[in-house]
This record gives sequence, structure tokens and C-alpha cells, in this order.
Amino acid sequence: MRPPSSPSEGLFDPIFTTDEVAGAVSDEAWVQAMLDVEAALARAASRAGLVPAAEAAVIAEHCQASRFDAAALGREAARSGSPVIPLVRALTGAVPEPASRHVHHGATSQDVLDTAAMLVCRRALAPLLADLSAAAESCAGLARAHRMTVMAGRSMLQQALPVTFGLKAAGWLSMIGQARARLADVRDARLAVQLGGAAGTLASLGGHGTEVAGLLADELGLAEPVLPWHTDRTRVAEVATALGMAAATLGKVARDVVLLAQTEVAEVAEPHAPGRGGSSTMPHKRNPVGAVLTTAAALRAPGLVATVLAAAVQEHERAAGGWHAEWEPLTDLLRIAGGAAARMREVLGGLEVDPERMAANLRMTDGLLMAEHVATVLAGRVGRLAAHDLVEAAAGAAAGGRSLREVLLDDPAVREHLTPDELDAALDPAAYLGSAGAFVDRALDAHRRPAGEPA
Amino acid sequence: MRPPSSPSEGLFDPIFTTDEVAGAVSDEAWVQAMLDVEAALARAASRAGLVPAAEAAVIAEHCQASRFDAAALGREAARSGSPVIPLVRALTGAVPEPASRHVHHGATSQDVLDTAAMLVCRRALAPLLADLSAAAESCAGLARAHRMTVMAGRSMLQQALPVTFGLKAAGWLSMIGQARARLADVRDARLAVQLGGAAGTLASLGGHGTEVAGLLADELGLAEPVLPWHTDRTRVAEVATALGMAAATLGKVARDVVLLAQTEVAEVAEPHAPGRGGSSTMPHKRNPVGAVLTTAAALRAPGLVATVLAAAVQEHERAAGGWHAEWEPLTDLLRIAGGAAARMREVLGGLEVDPERMAANLRMTDGLLMAEHVATVLAGRVGRLAAHDLVEAAAGAAAGGRSLREVLLDDPAVREHLTPDELDAALDPAAYLGSAGAFVDRALDAHRRPAGEPA
Amino acid sequence: MRPPSSPSEGLFDPIFTTDEVAGAVSDEAWVQAMLDVEAALARAASRAGLVPAAEAAVIAEHCQASRFDAAALGREAARSGSPVIPLVRALTGAVPEPASRHVHHGATSQDVLDTAAMLVCRRALAPLLADLSAAAESCAGLARAHRMTVMAGRSMLQQALPVTFGLKAAGWLSMIGQARARLADVRDARLAVQLGGAAGTLASLGGHGTEVAGLLADELGLAEPVLPWHTDRTRVAEVATALGMAAATLGKVARDVVLLAQTEVAEVAEPHAPGRGGSSTMPHKRNPVGAVLTTAAALRAPGLVATVLAAAVQEHERAAGGWHAEWEPLTDLLRIAGGAAARMREVLGGLEVDPERMAANLRMTDGLLMAEHVATVLAGRVGRLAAHDLVEAAAGAAAGGRSLREVLLDDPAVREHLTPDELDAALDPAAYLGSAGAFVDRALDAHRRPAGEPA
Amino acid sequence: MRPPSSPSEGLFDPIFTTDEVAGAVSDEAWVQAMLDVEAALARAASRAGLVPAAEAAVIAEHCQASRFDAAALGREAARSGSPVIPLVRALTGAVPEPASRHVHHGATSQDVLDTAAMLVCRRALAPLLADLSAAAESCAGLARAHRMTVMAGRSMLQQALPVTFGLKAAGWLSMIGQARARLADVRDARLAVQLGGAAGTLASLGGHGTEVAGLLADELGLAEPVLPWHTDRTRVAEVATALGMAAATLGKVARDVVLLAQTEVAEVAEPHAPGRGGSSTMPHKRNPVGAVLTTAAALRAPGLVATVLAAAVQEHERAAGGWHAEWEPLTDLLRIAGGAAARMREVLGGLEVDPERMAANLRMTDGLLMAEHVATVLAGRVGRLAAHDLVEAAAGAAAGGRSLREVLLDDPAVREHLTPDELDAALDPAAYLGSAGAFVDRALDAHRRPAGEPA
Repeated sequence: MRPPSSPSEGLFDPIFTTDEVAGAVSDEAWVQAMLDVEAALARAASRAGLVPAAEAAVIAEHCQASRFDAAALGREAARSGSPVIPLVRALTGAVPEPASRHVHHGATSQDVLDTAAMLVCRRALAPLLADLSAAAESCAGLARAHRMTVMAGRSMLQQALPVTFGLKAAGWLSMIGQARARLADVRDARLAVQLGGAAGTLASLGGHGTEVAGLLADELGLAEPVLPWHTDRTRVAEVATALGMAAATLGKVARDVVLLAQTEVAEVAEPHAPGRGGSSTMPHKRNPVGAVLTTAAALRAPGLVATVLAAAVQEHERAAGGWHAEWEPLTDLLRIAGGAAARMREVLGGLEVDPERMAANLRMTDGLLMAEHVATVLAGRVGRLAAHDLVEAAAGAAAGGRSLREVLLDDPAVREHLTPDELDAALDPAAYLGSAGAFVDRALDAHRRPAGEPA
Repeated sequence: MRPPSSPSEGLFDPIFTTDEVAGAVSDEAWVQAMLDVEAALARAASRAGLVPAAEAAVIAEHCQASRFDAAALGREAARSGSPVIPLVRALTGAVPEPASRHVHHGATSQDVLDTAAMLVCRRALAPLLADLSAAAESCAGLARAHRMTVMAGRSMLQQALPVTFGLKAAGWLSMIGQARARLADVRDARLAVQLGGAAGTLASLGGHGTEVAGLLADELGLAEPVLPWHTDRTRVAEVATALGMAAATLGKVARDVVLLAQTEVAEVAEPHAPGRGGSSTMPHKRNPVGAVLTTAAALRAPGLVATVLAAAVQEHERAAGGWHAEWEPLTDLLRIAGGAAARMREVLGGLEVDPERMAANLRMTDGLLMAEHVATVLAGRVGRLAAHDLVEAAAGAAAGGRSLREVLLDDPAVREHLTPDELDAALDPAAYLGSAGAFVDRALDAHRRPAGEPA
Repeated sequence: MRPPSSPSEGLFDPIFTTDEVAGAVSDEAWVQAMLDVEAALARAASRAGLVPAAEAAVIAEHCQASRFDAAALGREAARSGSPVIPLVRALTGAVPEPASRHVHHGATSQDVLDTAAMLVCRRALAPLLADLSAAAESCAGLARAHRMTVMAGRSMLQQALPVTFGLKAAGWLSMIGQARARLADVRDARLAVQLGGAAGTLASLGGHGTEVAGLLADELGLAEPVLPWHTDRTRVAEVATALGMAAATLGKVARDVVLLAQTEVAEVAEPHAPGRGGSSTMPHKRNPVGAVLTTAAALRAPGLVATVLAAAVQEHERAAGGWHAEWEPLTDLLRIAGGAAARMREVLGGLEVDPERMAANLRMTDGLLMAEHVATVLAGRVGRLAAHDLVEAAAGAAAGGRSLREVLLDDPAVREHLTPDELDAALDPAAYLGSAGAFVDRALDAHRRPAGEPA
Repeated sequence: MRPPSSPSEGLFDPIFTTDEVAGAVSDEAWVQAMLDVEAALARAASRAGLVPAAEAAVIAEHCQASRFDAAALGREAARSGSPVIPLVRALTGAVPEPASRHVHHGATSQDVLDTAAMLVCRRALAPLLADLSAAAESCAGLARAHRMTVMAGRSMLQQALPVTFGLKAAGWLSMIGQARARLADVRDARLAVQLGGAAGTLASLGGHGTEVAGLLADELGLAEPVLPWHTDRTRVAEVATALGMAAATLGKVARDVVLLAQTEVAEVAEPHAPGRGGSSTMPHKRNPVGAVLTTAAALRAPGLVATVLAAAVQEHERAAGGWHAEWEPLTDLLRIAGGAAARMREVLGGLEVDPERMAANLRMTDGLLMAEHVATVLAGRVGRLAAHDLVEAAAGAAAGGRSLREVLLDDPAVREHLTPDELDAALDPAAYLGSAGAFVDRALDAHRRPAGEPA
């Protein structure tokens, strides 16, 4: 049962996530996921012959979050440290006899919470993966449209060599694709049922333990693990690290957008919308707010991933703190990665690109940007190091205000090896793009390939 | 104006914090803190002669969180990335002309949010500091009561030497005292007003900028900084790191409690209360749930502190993401450190101590625990290394089932230097406590000293 | 070319890693890896027809780390921020004309360092994966040998239910297997060549860019990426997160060992060796030093993983800091994960297990541990909640010193539903192990399956 | 005894630290610090009458690192997990009888390592604090020189309002001053001797424990703690967090420098030096390498701080991993914060500032940057919100290519309230600097005040 769409109701929450993700990780969604596990458990036990089918049906029919008060469960949970304990008590109280005897059959509270967490992950990953797909699609469009739009490539924020905006977009496409593929793999292969009972033996199910566990997995469409994983947190860590990588990837794209949108660079702008990126004091401002909030998400994700990894060192058959430490950070990772994906989908979907400004910026260094090319051409004639030193000297002189062309033509050592025409050819950015176009094509090909990327 | 006490209303929230802290960091509390800043700003501008007193009063009177809908503000905030922008618009709309012209006078949205954050910190630190004080007081009581209660000291979880439970409690006392002192210092000296306007010049206040900033600090009882600190996040980092140290300290005490409460150790137990530490499947369980949840907080704090530090690398006059990245982690640190302090106050306030079990555990190694003492006594006669080797050999033999006393008395090399009576004295734990009592007294003295620790 | 085995030469280094891993990540190994890239690049360019084969051979023959002084390179590197720049200069100086013209053909320094990092990862992962395999094998042996060795299962460090030591070892086996599989996947599928030139276009290779990149991958046995990944750090993040998960997994096993080795529990001990786990002052101590150092590694890994993720937000075509921030943390992750794997291989390979002590500890609660079973048996007769409450009351009474059996038999409500024989059966730990044996078998089966786990 | 200056000898090390810091945290420096502790302990025991003065002198005279082989100690340390154990054994072997009996008198290995760590911190902090002071001094010089040099203030990397470069430098000055003050406080007040013996009772010193601890503190010039702090890691956490804040602060300044040095902004440049910031392929490049490496340090510090905080949750009287987890991260924090301080001292000491480019960039928006001022002036006549909306509309129109002045003068609603002269005044950046100059003066005043900042 999908939780009812419950839009975010907080002050900061809507800044960092979306209604859809917020709905998938809300308190109500968690309660529903726990109830979904209880219902599936009853059905699984029934299929194993441990619970009459009619009674399982009665239990399942009471497993609706709207019948329970999340805040009240939370208040009771404070005493035991787990929301499952009051929920099971409330559910057992709500279900009429004799079905109530079979509520939570064979399970421990961690079984329910862990399996519910897997359901919450799957549900919250749906909009996230869709947003990543759409963002990738927009990148593909940009890569195609600007395959040969020349702009400055920048290293350490210094103009370095000409590239194309299509190549930059292809890079975004490729990295978003990888992040998405890893998340999809984790979702499809690693989200698993947890059923082990109090100490991982399923003792209270007698000889039916592994059978019920398999049926529960079948009921919920989750993987069946080899063993209960109460203190083997690999699966949780895989979700968290994949989310962390997605946030970092989106953060990289966002950083590029923020930098390209600088007043002094102005090569791209976020899509305009009323009230978007406004300032309370500066009416002219058009802040790259989508990219800024994505950057914030990327700053937050590493600490949350670290927490999940640190919490994975868990004691014996049930942890004394590590398990509890996962709940909110995992939820937060889903929230902020989901928010970031939605933001960048919006940013990339409407990105305004200014090829003229790109060309103008490329001319700013008056030829210095082509120094490598000149050095390469010269290297074929005087050797790599000599060419490097020669051009470095010219570049130094050119920084004083004269163009690189002028300085080079003044140098007899250069004139000896290059004609003015050869020099002009060496100074043309559009003629020095190497494999840029080929790389764009490869990225588009890889994007089209369905390789292991389920919808 | 203190926010109305708004008990936590979430599913997980009450597990990790308290109603009092939850009330101090709730959405409503944040809105009230922002409104408190707007009201104080109006009064400060009025005292500087920039706004008529009557109009400032009208503004102040509208600055009540109950008049605003936090969720609606949040939804609007998503577009601009700041909840202050819709709040200022709503407040301006609510205040009648002509007072409305003076709403948010000279401020930028970050001024309001940053100053509000300082107020939220001050308010959330009040219960936290009180809980730390009470926890320390309980430790002092335990240190006094058990000054000479002998127990095993343990290194790497191996019994090492006798200590007293009073010394252990004195250690807790001392570290909680230091964590509290640092937090109190930060609260008293480092929480400061932020007022800089859009770029830190307070340009729109003309020549009155520094004056209004000083008056604002006076109105709110916060420190006046040398400069606006929009992208100098030292103060935020100091709050966060002090909270991180408090969480770590509480985590250390909690870890000790969890370990001492193990079934096989059983030297302490958390106070009993109905439903507390219960299990859904194991009726006999009495889990150290307070210490467990504190451990969870200590696992989470480092990642949040790291986030605040990482986010402190902010651009120019206003950050492109770093600032936004602070809001929820800072709130979470206040929440979970506050929750941990309250948990440990409760745990330490009612800790059940079992001196008989301590004595019994001390006898488990059949004298091995006193090996260092025997080695020390022998060292005075045969040299330190020779004594060490001699006792190591005996300890090895004793591990086979015989008592250390027996093995040592069998060794002619030992008998040559020690009489049986001397050996028995060397094997008495209560006679080998060194400065334990003196250290307890020092910790109690330091605790009584009011050194820089405001109530 | 494999670097010469260079044992760790530091003060702390041997505590945290092994000679083999230290050799694979040493300065000399890094220099060799960079030279391996230069050699392969020359060969690749030669195969593409850009460099005469004889000259490529001359270059390759000079690519031996022993010919270069890492410390001198480091000192020069401080100025440019990259060790590749002085290395290329030194290599070019060493190679005779005309071959020297072709050194570093088409590459940028990041190409060399990133590809070298991939080689370093592959080389350091070899001992790490071997150690994980051996550790897993030892776990499999323990799981088989102790499939039915009954011991206390513990939740929150409280005895909860009987389990078997074989099940615990099977859990370790399963989680080590997963960690190893992920690392092996990353090694086999994600370690890739980097070749993009100064801005990712391979401009200086003219039309031969993608061809040379493919040949370079072929030369080095690394994957060929779709695009250069100068600022797409997904691959580095995947290595780092997989190492972080391995460290966490090893940390979990180590935590269990430390806890089981406690003086008061004493169910396992680390293998004994001269000087191992000794103390400078306590001759009898036998510290679980392998598990302790592994725990230290698990504490350190999350911060390093977080750093790699945070550093992945990189600017444009070359980062202004994020790239540099990866080098030492990635090396440290390889070092400490490698050290932890070796430590746990040793610990698990010689773990001393004490089934008698396990049985004795299981009797400590005088039946309380079997409370769930009694409750389960009773539940079939009086309903789950009633049974839970009944047994909870009895458990409370039993905590006062009488056995649970005694208390239960005194209760008419119990006697009404259970005979003494039925009660005794319900109180037998060995009869309440549920699917423990089946789970052990499943874990052993999964371990034997070669699923995607190359040697 | 200060360790001999041992310049960094690694491949990456010189990129991230300085010779002076590397010398203070080298293996040899650690060994010397441990030996300094052993020597001081002998003298302290002698002053307490426990060891003959002549024998203490003999011990002290052997406490020279050059007599020991750090690598050999490291290899032995791997077995026990502590370098102190082999060191004490080696020292005892080196010191002749009878003095050798008194080596390591009353101490445990952690006493020696923890106290040595405090010495290492003090020594490594000396160059770090000196570099911070020099960096601050350079900032003060820049603030004075450019008090009224107008430039664009930027929020979210968008030009926002005019500021002065002096104000930006004053901000750097203020934050570096705070970071330095906190570090100096920690160094002066929190670095303390550790002496507790095996379990914190100093049992082997009989009744002389606290006396010897006090004398040891006196010998080493470190604080005497209330209690041994073996598992109270507050002091270590305070060092680490203060270093983390320093790294973040330096990172913020570095980020500003990198952004200002962008090709398209070009308002500052790092000082030029041969080979500095060079590229292997782009001869014209002048990378802001000092700021880039500082940024890398700021990216790494948060993870290391988090590790120290996470490791602070330590068990009982000696930790099972947490203590070991501190050593390398603490060393790394000293290394990279020290390196960052030195880098920024160099960058700020020779920063090239281009006021003309600042002025030119300020003109890029053709008046849009002054929109707030115009809105403020208008607000006095039509109300804040009306003015905001009016100017926002004009700014939108101006973005189309016309200047803001032109668009505003076309608007009758504006002309009604502002004359062209009033508008020109409102559009002059130099006339809209608010308290910039006053803030610069305050920062310089605060810098001159010696407030709690020892040299």
C-alpha cells in the first residue's frame, strides 16, 4: 500500500526536498511501511500454514496508517527506543480476537523496522530515480545541441583550453548516469526483507523460519537474504553510499552551474520563474537557487554517509545504539538526495545557455588559452620541453597586455619554425577541440544503451 | 519572547530529543526567533532615530509566531531558498501602514536567520545545560557514595587493576563538567547578533549601521561582533563543535553504562520504569535504553559537526550553499545533544549500583588482576623487567586454573623475595588503589568550584 | 611492473597496515605507478603510430622508480601542487633525445596521477581481497565446527535468546563475503584509465585521442571509460565507499570479538603469540589487540570516506582543491582497510573458542533467557499479549534470585496451561534454536558459490 | 628537547605541510616527545624522592631520539599496538643498572603516548600560530591599504552590492584572528600531562601519585589535570576541533582567492614565483596553487575532526580502539592545518590586487548592482515593498541590454519621485558603502588589541 501523498509541512523541509519524497519518508509513510510489513507477515505466515487465512486477512485489513496516530506512537516509543513496540501493541489492540493472537507473528521489532526501511527506500527512490533520468535526458539534449559550441575549459578556475559546452554536458550526463545506475542496482538487488526474530534464529517460528522469510520476501517484492542482517548493515550502507555518490554528482553539476552563472562569467542561467532566486533586498538578483540548494545537499551528504558507516559497527545480535543511529540519517539522505535530484532536473531542464558569451569569454585571454596548442605545434619542431619553455616565456610577456600572437611573432626563435598562417591556425580555438565531438557521441551512445538500468 | 512549549510531534523525534528541546528548535520556535529579531530590529532602529517609536511598537506587536503558518512559509521558501523572504513579506503585509514601511529595516534575510539561529541556540542550550548540570550532580553523588567501592578497572575490556566506582563516577563528573563549561562559554561569549545587510556594509542604514547593530545586540542580549559574519562561520562552528564534544562525552558515559549493565557484568542497571527498555518479544529484558539512545546520539554528532565545518568554507559575502547546509544539521545537533543530556540525567539520577557484584567480578581472575602489584613489589627487589617477566610467567601458568597466589608460592624465585604474608598483602585489591580516593576528592572539589560556570 | 616490496618504515604505520599493503601504497609504489602510466602511454602512442616503437621502448625502459628520488620529487611538487610535474621533467631529462620528445605525449599531469591511483588501488586491493577471502574461509570453518554450539544471543548487550556460535560465525562469513564481493566488483569493473589532456578533449593528440585512450587501457589492463573523468569522481568514490564498507564490516566482527573476549565473558580469545597483546605494566594481560586495531580502522574509515565524497564536488574541467584532497585519504583507506583485513584474518584464523564458557554464560540468567520461548508456548494457549505479560511478571519475580522455572511453577495461571515437563522443554536452550542450523547451511552454501567473486 | 629539524621526506607530504610542521610531527619527533616524557618522569619521581637524582639524570641522558630506530620500534609496535612498549623496553635496555630499574616509573604506556601527543601538539602549533599571525598581519595591511577600494560584493556568486576590498580583507583578518585565538587558548590552557598508571589510580606510585603528576606537569610545562584522562578525550577533541576551525577559516579565505583569481574576474593573483602554479601542459597557466592546496586541507579537516570525536567514545579505563584511532588523524590535522596556514601566509603576504579590474567588474552590470540603493532611496518615498517591486521590474527590463539608469528614467513612477541627479547619486557605488570603513577600523582595532592572544 502506497502512503497517501503527504506534502512536506515543515519550515525548512520544502527547501531541501520535494513533496513526493517528503511523502515517501514522512512519519505516516514510515508507519504505513511498518504496517505493510505486519500485513505481509500475516499473509506469509498464513501461506506457511501457521495462521488461518481469514485471520491474516483481518490483520491485513487493519494495517492502514490512517488508523494510527504517529505522534502518539512517537511519544510511547521514547520509553522503549522503538516505534514498533507501541505500534504492535496498538495494532494488536485494534485487531479483534482471535486474529489478534497472530499479529507480529515470529518477528522482533527490528524485523519490522528494517523491512519497513527497505520499503521506504524503495518508495523514496522512485521519484529520485525518475528525476535523475529526466536530468540525464536534459543533459543529453544539451550535449547534442551544443556538441560544437566552443567555450573555455577551466582548470583550477583558470581558463585552460577550449572545450565545447556539449562536452561539459556530456560529462554531466555520464556522471549522472553512473550515479543513477548504482542507485538502481542497489534498489533492485540489495533491498531485502529482514526476518530473524529476537536473536536471528527465528526460534519462535519453530521449523518454519526460512519458509516464512521467503514468503515474506515474496509478499513484499524484496530480496530474500541469505541470513537475517540485524547487525550486518551492508545493505543500509549500500543505500547510503549510493545516495551519497548521487548527491556528490549532483553537487558537481550544481557547482559548475553556479560558477557559469557568475555575473562575470554569465554563460548559463537557471530557468526563470516568479519568485525564484529572489532576494529580500536586491530586486535585480537572480540567484542560481536550484544549484545552491543542491550544493547544500552535497555538503550534507558526506556526514550522513559517514554516520551510517560508523553506525554499522554493531554489537552481537542487536546493536546498542548503532541501529538507532541510522534511522534519521538514512531518512535525511533520501530527503536531500531526492531534493537535489528534483532541483537539478528543473535547473537542467530549463538551463539558459549563452554561446555568444562563451565565445566572448574565450577571447578574454587574447590567445593565451591556445598556448598549449602553439606549444604542441612547436614541440613537433623543437622538442616538448623547449617548446614549453619558449611558449611560457611568451605567455609571460603577453600577460603584460599584448596578445600572444604579437609576442610570438616578435620572437625570432618562433618565426624560424612557424609562419604567421601556421600560428593563426594554432591559435584558433575551434580547430583545437581534439576528441570533444567524439566524446560527446560516446556519452550519448552510452546513455541510449539500456545497460542494466531498469526504468 | 519564548516560544510556546510545543512538544515533539514526530514518530522518531521523541526518541532522540526531549519535549523541551524539541519546543526550542521547532518550526514555530524558529519562526518566533526570526520574528523576535524583526521586533528587536524595529526597536533598535527606533532607538537610533530611524523609525518612529510608535511604528516600531506596532511592528513588534505583530511579531508573534502564532499569527503565521510555518508550513505555508516553508512552501514559499522553497522558491527562494530562504524562509525569511516569505516571512518578511507576510509580516509586512500584516503590519498596517505606515509602520509596515519599516519592517526588516536595513537587514538582509541572512541577518534575520543567523541572529534567529543564535536565539534558537541559546534557548535550546538552556535545558541542555541544566540537564548536564543535573547529570554532573548525580555523578558527584555517585563519586562520594562509592569513593572506596572497589571494582575492576578495565583496559581494552580486559580486567586490569582494581579501581573504585567512585573514581569512575569522578571521571564522568570531570568530563561532563568540561563539556558543560565549554558549552556555557560558547553560549555566553560567542552567540552574537548578525547585522550586515546585503553585502556586509549595512549600506542601506547610511551612517547608522554600527549603531543599530549595537542596539540590536542590546535588545536581544547577544554579543555584538566586530564585523558582520555572513561568511565567517566561526561562531556556528564553535556551537557545533561544543555540542559535538558534549555528545561524545555523554556517549562515553553511556558506553560505560551499557558495558557495566551487560548480563555477564551486571554491576549497574538503568533505573526501572514501566515500559522502559522493554522488548516486544523478550518479556524479561531490561535494556539500558537511555544509554543506548545516548550512544546513538554520539554516533550521529561527528557527521553533523563535520558538515558544519565543511559548510564553513563560504564564498565572498554570501555563500552558494554552505549557509543553507548549516540549518538542519545545527538543529539536529541541538536536538540530539539535548536528548542525550536528558537521557543521561535520567540514567545517572537513578543508576542502580551493585557493589557486591563488583567485588565478585573482581575475584574472577583469581588474583591475576593484582599481577601488576605483585610485579611492583617484586620490582623493588629484583628490578622492574625481571619482576615483569617473572610475574608474566606465573600469570601464564595461573591461567590454567590455579590461582596466581598458588603459582607464585610454588616459585622458589618468588619465595626468595616475598613471604606469604607479603604476597597476600600484594594480592589485596583494596590495598592497591593508589590515588583513587585523592582523585575523587579533586574531582569533587573542581565540581564545587564555580569556575566560569554560570548557572 | 610491480613495485619492489618495501616494508613499512614508520612508527605508527606498521600498527595500522601490513608490509604488503604498505609496499603497494608507498611513495615508491606511487612513483612506479606513475612511471608505469608513462611507459604504457608511450607504447600506446606507438601502437597508434604517433611515436616510433624504438623511442617508446627507450622511454619505457627508463620508467623505473628506483631511478628517481621520491623525496626530491615531493619537495619540487610543493610548488606546483602535483608530483607529476617534477616527475615528467625528471623523466624527460633522463630519456635521451629523440625519445625524450615523446615523454608524457598528449597527457596532462592529472591523467598520470589518476591512472596511477587506479593502479595503486588494484595493487593494494590484491592482498586486501586475499585477506578477506582467508578471513571468510576461517569464518566458514568456525560456522561448520560450531553449527550447534549453543551460546547466548545478545541484544543491546543483554542476553536475549540462545543462538549458536556457528550462526554468529555464519553472520560474519556472510557480511565479509558481501564486503569482498563489492570490492572485487569495483576492482574488476570500475578501475579505469584516465586520459583527457589538459581539458578533457585530448586536443594535443589531434584525431587520435580516443584511439590512444583505448590502447592505454589495453596496455594497463584497466577499463576504458566513456569519457575522461577528471572531475567525475564516481570511480574514486566507489573505491572509497567499498573500502569504507569493508572496514565497517571488519569492525563489526572485531567488536564482537572484543566483547566475547571480555574477562567476564571469556567465550573467545585471540590467538596467542609472543609479545602479542602484551602490556607494559600488567604482565597477565592478553589484550585482543588485533580486534582493537581493527576497531580503530573502522572508526577512521567513515571520516575518510566522507572526505572523498565531499571532495567529489569538483569544478569545471579540473578541480581547485577537491582532487588534491583525495590522494592521502584514498591511500589511508587502502592502508587501514588492508591492515584491518590482515588483522582479522589472523584473529579469525586462530580464534580460540570456549564452548563450555558459552554454556556456562547461558545458564547465568537461570532461565530468564528462555522467557521468550515460554511466552511463545504459553501464547499458543492464552494469546500473545497475555502470555507476554504473564512471563514478564514472572521474569520480574525471578530477577530477585529465584529461577524462572521455580517462579513459573508457583503461578497457578501457568500451571493451568503447562505441565512441569512442558515447562522444562520450553526452558531448554538447545531445543529453541529455530532456523540457526539452516541459516548456517545457507551461509556456507552462499560462500561456496563462486557468484561473481573472482579469485 | 626539541626534535632535530627533519624536513618532510615524502612524495605527497611536502604538498600538504611544511618542513617545520613535518619536523614537529615526524616519527622522530614523536619518539623524542615520548622520551621527553620518560626523562621528565624520572626527574619528577626524583623530586618526589622515589628515584635517586643521579639515576634520574642517567635516564634523562639516554632520552635522545637519535639513539633509537623509529622504524624498528614501529615493527615491534605492531604486535602490542603501541610504540611505547618497545620504546620502554629499548630504553630500559640502554640505561645501565641501577638506573634502569626506574625507567617508566609508575606510568603506563598510554601516559607516555598521551603526554607526548600534547608535546607534539604544542610544538606543531608553534609554526602554525606564527603563520596565522603573519597571515593576519598581511590581512591587516590589505585592509588598511584598500579600506576604500571599491569592488563588487557578491552573494551566491552574483554581484550584489559594492563593498571595499579592505572590508573583505578585514573579514579575513577577523576570522583568522578568532581561529588563532581559539587555538592559542587550547594550547595554553588545555594541553595537559597524562599520568594515571594502568587504570588511572597511579597505584604503583603508592601515596605519591598526585605529587608526581604535579611535578611531571611542572617539568614539561603542561597543565596538571584534575584527573587522569585516559578515556576522557575532551582535550584531544578541543585540539582537533580548534584545528578544524582553523582549516575551515583558511579554506574560506582560499576559496575567495581562487574565485577572485578566476580568469574572468582577475581581481587578485597569487604571488608569482618560479615554478609556482605551473602546469605540465599549459605554459601560460598561473594557478592559485596556494589557495588550491589550502582548499584541499579544508576539505580534509572535517572528516578528521569527525574521526577524533567519534573515537572519543571510549570504554572504561582504556579504550578498545578509540585511542588508537586518534594518533594518525591528530597528526594529519596538525600537518594539513599547519600546511594551510603556511600557504595562506605566503598567498596573503604577496597577494597582487588589481583595483582597476575591481572597478571595471563593478561596472559590468551597468547599474544593476546599485538596484538596492535605488530601491532604498525610493522606499523613503513610496514604501519598501512598492520600491522593491518597482526596481525589480526595472532591473528585469535592464537585463535586456539597456542600463538601469536609462530604464528607470523612462519610468514615470520613478521620475515622479527622483530627479536625474538624485538617481545618479543613488547609482554611485562609492557613495553606497555604508559602514564599510567603520567595520575595517573595528577589525583593525580588534587585531591590535592583544586580547588573550599570547605570542
